[in-house]
Amino acid sequence: MCRFLAYSGEPVFLSDLVCAPTHSLVHQSLHADEGKTETNGDGFGIGWYGERPEPGIYRDISPAWSDENLVNLCGQVRARTFFAHVRASTGTATARANCHPFVYGRHLFMHNGQIGGYHRIKRRLEALIPDTFYDHRRGSTDSEVIFLLALANGLEQDPVGAMARTLETIRGLMKEAGVSEPLRFTALLTDGETLTAYRWACDGRPPSLYFRDGPGGIVVVSEPIDGCREGWRVVPKGGTLRARHGHATVVTGPEAVRSRAA
Amino acid sequence: MCRFLAYSGEPVFLSDLVCAPTHSLVHQSLHADEGKTETNGDGFGIGWYGERPEPGIYRDISPAWSDENLVNLCGQVRARTFFAHVRASTGTATARANCHPFVYGRHLFMHNGQIGGYHRIKRRLEALIPDTFYDHRRGSTDSEVIFLLALANGLEQDPVGAMARTLETIRGLMKEAGVSEPLRFTALLTDGETLTAYRWACDGRPPSLYFRDGPGGIVVVSEPIDGCREGWRVVPKGGTLRARHGHATVVTGPEAVRSRAA
Amino acid sequence: MCRFLAYSGEPVFLSDLVCAPTHSLVHQSLHADEGKTETNGDGFGIGWYGERPEPGIYRDISPAWSDENLVNLCGQVRARTFFAHVRASTGTATARANCHPFVYGRHLFMHNGQIGGYHRIKRRLEALIPDTFYDHRRGSTDSEVIFLLALANGLEQDPVGAMARTLETIRGLMKEAGVSEPLRFTALLTDGETLTAYRWACDGRPPSLYFRDGPGGIVVVSEPIDGCREGWRVVPKGGTLRARHGHATVVTGPEAVRSRAA
Amino acid sequence: MCRFLAYSGEPVFLSDLVCAPTHSLVHQSLHADEGKTETNGDGFGIGWYGERPEPGIYRDISPAWSDENLVNLCGQVRARTFFAHVRASTGTATARANCHPFVYGRHLFMHNGQIGGYHRIKRRLEALIPDTFYDHRRGSTDSEVIFLLALANGLEQDPVGAMARTLETIRGLMKEAGVSEPLRFTALLTDGETLTAYRWACDGRPPSLYFRDGPGGIVVVSEPIDGCREGWRVVPKGGTLRARHGHATVVTGPEAVRSRAA
Repeated sequence: MCRFLAYSGEPVFLSDLVCAPTHSLVHQSLHADEGKTETNGDGFGIGWYGERPEPGIYRDISPAWSDENLVNLCGQVRARTFFAHVRASTGTATARANCHPFVYGRHLFMHNGQIGGYHRIKRRLEALIPDTFYDHRRGSTDSEVIFLLALANGLEQDPVGAMARTLETIRGLMKEAGVSEPLRFTALLTDGETLTAYRWACDGRPPSLYFRDGPGGIVVVSEPIDGCREGWRVVPKGGTLRARHGHATVVTGPEAVRSRAA
Repeated sequence: MCRFLAYSGEPVFLSDLVCAPTHSLVHQSLHADEGKTETNGDGFGIGWYGERPEPGIYRDISPAWSDENLVNLCGQVRARTFFAHVRASTGTATARANCHPFVYGRHLFMHNGQIGGYHRIKRRLEALIPDTFYDHRRGSTDSEVIFLLALANGLEQDPVGAMARTLETIRGLMKEAGVSEPLRFTALLTDGETLTAYRWACDGRPPSLYFRDGPGGIVVVSEPIDGCREGWRVVPKGGTLRARHGHATVVTGPEAVRSRAA
Repeated sequence: MCRFLAYSGEPVFLSDLVCAPTHSLVHQSLHADEGKTETNGDGFGIGWYGERPEPGIYRDISPAWSDENLVNLCGQVRARTFFAHVRASTGTATARANCHPFVYGRHLFMHNGQIGGYHRIKRRLEALIPDTFYDHRRGSTDSEVIFLLALANGLEQDPVGAMARTLETIRGLMKEAGVSEPLRFTALLTDGETLTAYRWACDGRPPSLYFRDGPGGIVVVSEPIDGCREGWRVVPKGGTLRARHGHATVVTGPEAVRSRAA
Repeated sequence: MCRFLAYSGEPVFLSDLVCAPTHSLVHQSLHADEGKTETNGDGFGIGWYGERPEPGIYRDISPAWSDENLVNLCGQVRARTFFAHVRASTGTATARANCHPFVYGRHLFMHNGQIGGYHRIKRRLEALIPDTFYDHRRGSTDSEVIFLLALANGLEQDPVGAMARTLETIRGLMKEAGVSEPLRFTALLTDGETLTAYRWACDGRPPSLYFRDGPGGIVVVSEPIDGCREGWRVVPKGGTLRARHGHATVVTGPEAVRSRAA
């Protein structure tokens, strides 16, 4: 079911958060505590903002715990904003194109969860993606479909509203197809400046999401990377988080989200 | 710490034992019950005897649980004798050359366990391997070193005695170097006709080893592949097993082994 | 642009044709003589018929010239019918799902050539594939699309007619989109019993195709594997070949093909 | 036989030299003009100096021409000094540990050429490496052996002298073993500040080496990356080059080298 981490703030080395801590994301690739699966060894990916407006990404299909390139890169790259993800496939192939984060222009996106009954509605979902965004479809995951549909729905201008409308549409198709499994969507989006986190699920059980906000920057994680809950706040189920360095982080509950989705 | 499986008897499809059972070896790559590690995702390998006297092998660094080639091959290949192994590295790199089984001529070998303090005596161990066998050194594991040293000690003629002498030598080097960690050696060797299993450790705690003997053939495993102990017999700690199709399987205890090692 | 080889006849080891000859397919992965590209290092694949009605396949993204598993497998597997392919990508990603041969039920298919302007009509082509076959879409190549469309057009019952109709449809879409680049289609299809070869192109320049027919079996290749033309016959441009062990091989010219396509 | 490139000077994006030019190193991985082999698809590697004294490296076994991670990284990483290499194996396995550049502490090293008859003297060569450096041996190439032996010979303090003494020793072992194939050594070494290039061979035929020196920095290449000789100077056969940003580049001929080797 995946585990991930995002950071935004004063530039830090990726290794400080992705590799070094006691329960770092690399550690979680082998021993996650709160994920649906303990092992998340179906690939990994990092995305970071350097000197270019577009982020760089490095994704591979090997388990994060044994990839020397990942450790080496994280030790060398310092960034003001970055994403890191370790994958546990929910059915689609282990391939680089299916690893997160996904990139479009200046945006990075990653997802923990799944579209219930995805394989039954995959074709209909893909058919909804306009040509412009469909050309960017490289893999076969539900996560990438959600991202492209949301982009078509105006994600770049309205991260929360567009995503809410997108999930509404998907829920509609799921119901039409008689799917009973849930849609779970704990996800992160950024354009390098603003970080948006979502913790939604149609059955009230979205995957875990925590954050730690400080003067240097904000860290958003699937589970605390220092192995203890102290110092970490929970993003409420059904809520969102919005962070921008130099501004106060805004955490909203489900009511605010529902009104945005109109 | 690895999990493995061996079969010898009437030809069967590898998938019948490696993939299909409830707690197959592929399942154990993600969820082992009795291994030192639950996950064994640092590569895998199969070796089988077809029409040639020398076995074929297929080894790769991806986790067994996500490799479509492994499943496909096992579904197509039928053999009278075969080995299968899923790896949890004890320190050396994830590389094809470090995956088991290892092959030399007509022999296949695989190992679950480790040489304690290996990195401190690695060079001295390698120096003991005669040129003929050293030329076959492809990786960096302790397992491959044990195999090559044992071959030099007459493994092909005397599987038990040569291996016992080899481990004696290794223990000697370990003591010289002041190594306190144990030497654990649960392993399998075959030439396609005879199967030899070892369950040794200098601290009395060798990794698990079971077998199930029937008219069709014998299966030797790290842990029962059908998820329950019934029908499986334990190979005694400190003992060996010797099987040859058409002959009675012989299981010996530690005393018999010690006298062979002279 | 790829190179490939097919065999059907008395069982032989794959290595006898895929690896051993002077200008074997493995050699052609590095030094092809008649291909559009000299190097075909974007992956490879083999498919063979063993005891099962469905074929086994082994495909990977590494260059064939350096893959030890390929050599090992070919040396162990003997089959009455098999395909082998080395890939030079025409634009789509290097991924296992994009390596040939493709498999559907009992059929194997591989292609050398391309749909001109594929990326401009990719979406429209994919939309033509009925759900049943679309569910088998795993990659992003034009080759896989042709195969699935042809299956929908009755390829299993009428290999030549269905394929001709499929390429007609594709040509139609290409013209609509104003594509000037050609559609080139040198391809092989088998169900394990009958082998069908196609050598078609809309500009009269289909990739090369030769065959060598003997009492033991028939070999069909992109270029002669023994490095010389003697003993090999050319499949005529615009024609097809149909072979079935124990029956005379039938080679037809373009006229016969055009009438079948109605 | 490999192709490589090194840069030292004002920070530039790696892509400006490794990917973008007409005959970039990535292009040379598929179509080298002056190398022993046209294709160099047995892996690649980059090493660069960022904020840390030790360089970062990224190496993988896939051909450079199809690796999206390489392109992405090069587009994001800017460095004052970097190395890039594409490999054509001279016999040893395709594995990350066998890709260049090799790193030790603050040093990067890469090599184009080979130790003639390497496999016949491999063991004796490895035996000469002191424990400290032997512990860093990760692969099986002759290039890595040369690097470690040279480090033991004082490479960090005296790049030219130590390397000359090392190659002398190797030549000695080659002669003892009756090897007639040559030792060819076109190589690059850096500590992030000073760049040392060598163009040596015992048969007077070392692989090609060019450089282009400008106010911004110096580029040293196996073959000109803009597809023409103009603007590039040849490093003389048997000579060396030494560059340090802010200092004049020094190119010496064979006589100067021989005296240093004493």
